[in-house]
Amino acid sequence: MSDYITVIFEPAGAKVQVSVGTNLYEAGQQAGVEIAGSCGGYGICGECQVILMEGEVSELTSQERKLLDPALIEEGVRLACQTELLGDAVVRVPSVQEVVVRKALTAESVRSVQLAPNVQRYDLELAEPSLEDQRSDFRRLAEAITERASSLTATVECLGSLATALRAEDQQIAVTAVGSELVDVRPASMRSPALGVAVDIGTSTVAVYLVDLETGEHLVTAAGQNPQTKFGADVISRIQYANSHDDGLTALRDTIVAAINRFIGQAVTEVGAAPIDVYEATIVGNTCMHHIFLGLEPRYLAQSPYVPVTAEAVSVSADRLGLQMNPWGNVFCLPCIAGFVGADTVGVIVASELTRRDRPMLAVDIGTNGEIALWSGERLLTASCAAGPAFEGAQIHHGMRAGPGAIDEVFVSGDDLAVHTIDDQPARGICGSGLFDATAVLLELGLIDAKGHIADGQSCGTLSATMAERVEGEANERHVVLAGAERAAGGPIVFTQRDVREIQLAKSAIRASTEMLLEIVGLKPDDLDEVLIAGAFGNFINPASALRIGLLPDVPEGRIAGIGNAAGAGAILTLVSGHERDYARQVVETAEHIELFRSSDFQDRFAEYMMFP
Amino acid sequence: MSDYITVIFEPAGAKVQVSVGTNLYEAGQQAGVEIAGSCGGYGICGECQVILMEGEVSELTSQERKLLDPALIEEGVRLACQTELLGDAVVRVPSVQEVVVRKALTAESVRSVQLAPNVQRYDLELAEPSLEDQRSDFRRLAEAITERASSLTATVECLGSLATALRAEDQQIAVTAVGSELVDVRPASMRSPALGVAVDIGTSTVAVYLVDLETGEHLVTAAGQNPQTKFGADVISRIQYANSHDDGLTALRDTIVAAINRFIGQAVTEVGAAPIDVYEATIVGNTCMHHIFLGLEPRYLAQSPYVPVTAEAVSVSADRLGLQMNPWGNVFCLPCIAGFVGADTVGVIVASELTRRDRPMLAVDIGTNGEIALWSGERLLTASCAAGPAFEGAQIHHGMRAGPGAIDEVFVSGDDLAVHTIDDQPARGICGSGLFDATAVLLELGLIDAKGHIADGQSCGTLSATMAERVEGEANERHVVLAGAERAAGGPIVFTQRDVREIQLAKSAIRASTEMLLEIVGLKPDDLDEVLIAGAFGNFINPASALRIGLLPDVPEGRIAGIGNAAGAGAILTLVSGHERDYARQVVETAEHIELFRSSDFQDRFAEYMMFP
Repeated sequence: MSDYITVIFEPAGAKVQVSVGTNLYEAGQQAGVEIAGSCGGYGICGECQVILMEGEVSELTSQERKLLDPALIEEGVRLACQTELLGDAVVRVPSVQEVVVRKALTAESVRSVQLAPNVQRYDLELAEPSLEDQRSDFRRLAEAITERASSLTATVECLGSLATALRAEDQQIAVTAVGSELVDVRPASMRSPALGVAVDIGTSTVAVYLVDLETGEHLVTAAGQNPQTKFGADVISRIQYANSHDDGLTALRDTIVAAINRFIGQAVTEVGAAPIDVYEATIVGNTCMHHIFLGLEPRYLAQSPYVPVTAEAVSVSADRLGLQMNPWGNVFCLPCIAGFVGADTVGVIVASELTRRDRPMLAVDIGTNGEIALWSGERLLTASCAAGPAFEGAQIHHGMRAGPGAIDEVFVSGDDLAVHTIDDQPARGICGSGLFDATAVLLELGLIDAKGHIADGQSCGTLSATMAERVEGEANERHVVLAGAERAAGGPIVFTQRDVREIQLAKSAIRASTEMLLEIVGLKPDDLDEVLIAGAFGNFINPASALRIGLLPDVPEGRIAGIGNAAGAGAILTLVSGHERDYARQVVETAEHIELFRSSDFQDRFAEYMMFP
Repeated sequence: MSDYITVIFEPAGAKVQVSVGTNLYEAGQQAGVEIAGSCGGYGICGECQVILMEGEVSELTSQERKLLDPALIEEGVRLACQTELLGDAVVRVPSVQEVVVRKALTAESVRSVQLAPNVQRYDLELAEPSLEDQRSDFRRLAEAITERASSLTATVECLGSLATALRAEDQQIAVTAVGSELVDVRPASMRSPALGVAVDIGTSTVAVYLVDLETGEHLVTAAGQNPQTKFGADVISRIQYANSHDDGLTALRDTIVAAINRFIGQAVTEVGAAPIDVYEATIVGNTCMHHIFLGLEPRYLAQSPYVPVTAEAVSVSADRLGLQMNPWGNVFCLPCIAGFVGADTVGVIVASELTRRDRPMLAVDIGTNGEIALWSGERLLTASCAAGPAFEGAQIHHGMRAGPGAIDEVFVSGDDLAVHTIDDQPARGICGSGLFDATAVLLELGLIDAKGHIADGQSCGTLSATMAERVEGEANERHVVLAGAERAAGGPIVFTQRDVREIQLAKSAIRASTEMLLEIVGLKPDDLDEVLIAGAFGNFINPASALRIGLLPDVPEGRIAGIGNAAGAGAILTLVSGHERDYARQVVETAEHIELFRSSDFQDRFAEYMMFP
């Protein structure tokens, strides 16, 4: 009898053989199946929920009883890291894809540009060589492509297949060039698509946008959690991981490369192509993600004076990075601006054409780290601030990411509070846009005062009784029930005094930074033509709420626009257009990065904007 | 008891375990020991001579009795391919190095040029980063090297070690750039040499010249037989091997790459350096060697219209070719001119500065294939002709390469013929320069007539009796004894009627080609300022003999100069100077290649020059 048991992970159908006693999280990793999780398998984060369909596993642990509500347990939900396999099993992994599809870039959010990719496809029929025309195969080919034939080169592998390819179908061939280098030549009948991928490496999620480089069409998106999450939820903890483990950087790098490879594989499979058809990748991400992806020491990003190893655009052959695409394809990493203003911000600026505008504009990317880019009409200023992970649902009592069951809207309905949840599922927590709304609504109701104290419901004379009853607890332990047991999946979802403090810290950091930048260029908020909110949940934020809590400078609500994953859009634009790639380089040359925290003015401003308007 | 036996190959000391019955040639291959051989292990060429020092092996075969003279057999010489191992053994492999050292480039034969290599070393101390100066590590470095910092790039591996290297010794570093790409950065105290290799891939021999790229000094040469010889002695048989075997091209390529790696290893070891210190290689070789080295299909070189896959200069990263040097180092393959006028000829032209001369000049590279370059003062014409391997000693009854015991000079001494042998060893055969001399001397003596017939010694009235007795045999079986049994190692060395025919064919091909080129540009032989003889044995040829047999156009003897391995010298020049590299490219753009064999005039000329003057 074998000691090995077979586990099948649905819906992927991934099958793996493991030894008895392996936990489901490890088994998932071995099967190449992505299971959420950010605590490293200690049963703390409660994110690695899977559903046991069939099979024998270990008993529920005390951690599971604590973190999973009884309804979930009844449905067969287990925490993968707590569940040991005792026999063959079939397990369903809730799709994180659902989350991503909501966040993912829609084709419309990418402005249209003239197609001018770095990858070119040529369909040619060459003249037969003869004693009158003894030009080499390569020269014959290069001269058919351009009059400036001497500007072209070819990989040795391409040269290696050239003679045979030319003679297979009477000199009819399909040729692919990456930049000025020919990387593929094959008989015409073996022509395949020329694809590219724009890759957005977010701290939490990774998105791969597959693009047809001959048409510029965005074909499909494959995305999911950034599996580096298992090494730490934010960039600082990942840098610490790299610093404190032998080969820590390698482990982080291998993890993200494997994830990107998986998404590339999913995307090309969906369109019936192969990874080798992908000839170029453009990469955006914050400076830490950028450094880890390239294998660059991230340690000094987190130490004063916060210098990156490089901030230049980097072009490197795919095989050098281990990306599973055409090995001679090019990987173009957009440039960064500073240690905490990365290629993602450059992508946002490219996507929004910030510095091509006549009038002042502000772009704010809200995440654990807030990045702010201000265009005065003449100068481009950038700054970063540690907003903390509150807006992404972390460190919030019932915070969660924007997935099914997340409260994403909070509003007054009649004489009571009401909430909307993603996919109309029973409420499981609050995501960023819900936190904004909740704070704004409670401020309007007088349940939160300017200093951020949650008032005693009974002492707020203007409240309905229903509303007042939502306030529970005393003083610093007070909270507001957003969704009672009847609406929630695992007990009431509450918004706590501590949550308000986190919101205050986060919004104040962003607001103080913005105001400082405006002052430096001598502008007032009202001079801003537009305020763009980038980032995954930018599109879902209620501008009125953002203004009400004082996150944004005081502009008319109509000037605020969510622009979604603009960093990803920037990656797509630089994938399909060399001009946009030049623009990205120019943005970085133009940018003046301001280290705000050094200024005592900033500290004063930060304290001031802790208050709600 | 094990079926495996141990064989040690001296002087390398290489040890290998093989099964009983393995022959010594195979065992040598497994041990990575180079044993000469060009027949593929059939006991035909007699080149794989080794000396059995200890151990039990199979009996002498009939082939060995035929090919080895008794004196050698007494010394323990065996043919490796014919000798099966029956027990542990120690075998000595005669060094082919001896041959090569004679042929190898001397430092003096390389003209001096201003040092301008593609590899640059920078010793720098950078300014510490600060909050006032947050430039990235890379930008800080690039700006310390050049004002045009944006023209520099770096490999991701170099960027990967940059942050740590900078901070190890207070920003004091040694940096190596290949072209505009930084490939290595390390703390100043870990500085190591910046070396380069010029590689001459000859059909028969391979030479690796190690050069210090900081001083331009030629440090050491490592060289030996081209082990592709085992697949065939000449380029045509190697192309046939590639065509008729699965992975034949790969086998040929792997063989030459392994040989170059071995020579690089030997050379760097000799100067106490490591392969990783070698940052650039320049490569010369005929078009077939060039194609095989790069893994390019050689098939069409040998088929009309004889087009190469590429004739352009090729630059490629060392790791892409499997060369054991710095993996990010550059390999620069000099350009070729045509299918049978390769990068070796370009090297000869660069070394001799042919096209920089004011006056007409001719350069002739004599080998199995003759390459001819004529500079008219305005036009550069090239041609190739199949001279046959006669001048290299093949297809000559007692022909051999220029190794110990080869007759390299033949002259009249008193009333008899006399010979000189290399290293004053007992005569074992005749090499190229000896064949020239023998033919010239016999022509002078009237023993060979204008049509190439060897006369009956007795009927030549003017001959001494001693001399006349050297002629033996009748009509087409006649031969002249060059070294009698008393001077020879394995019986008399003779020069046969058939040998004279081979010489006639070879010299006629070269002479007819040369005359045709002169006619095309409207020059007479006497217009030539100089006639350069390139090639391994160029330095050893007696110009008077070359003129006497009609190999060269009719110029005063003083205008003929041997320039040795000028192809190798060209490789060294392009290694140490980018200007010479540009010159090589310019040579190829200038060259007009003429396919002589197409012209009926050539056929007439060929017939005409079969006659001796």
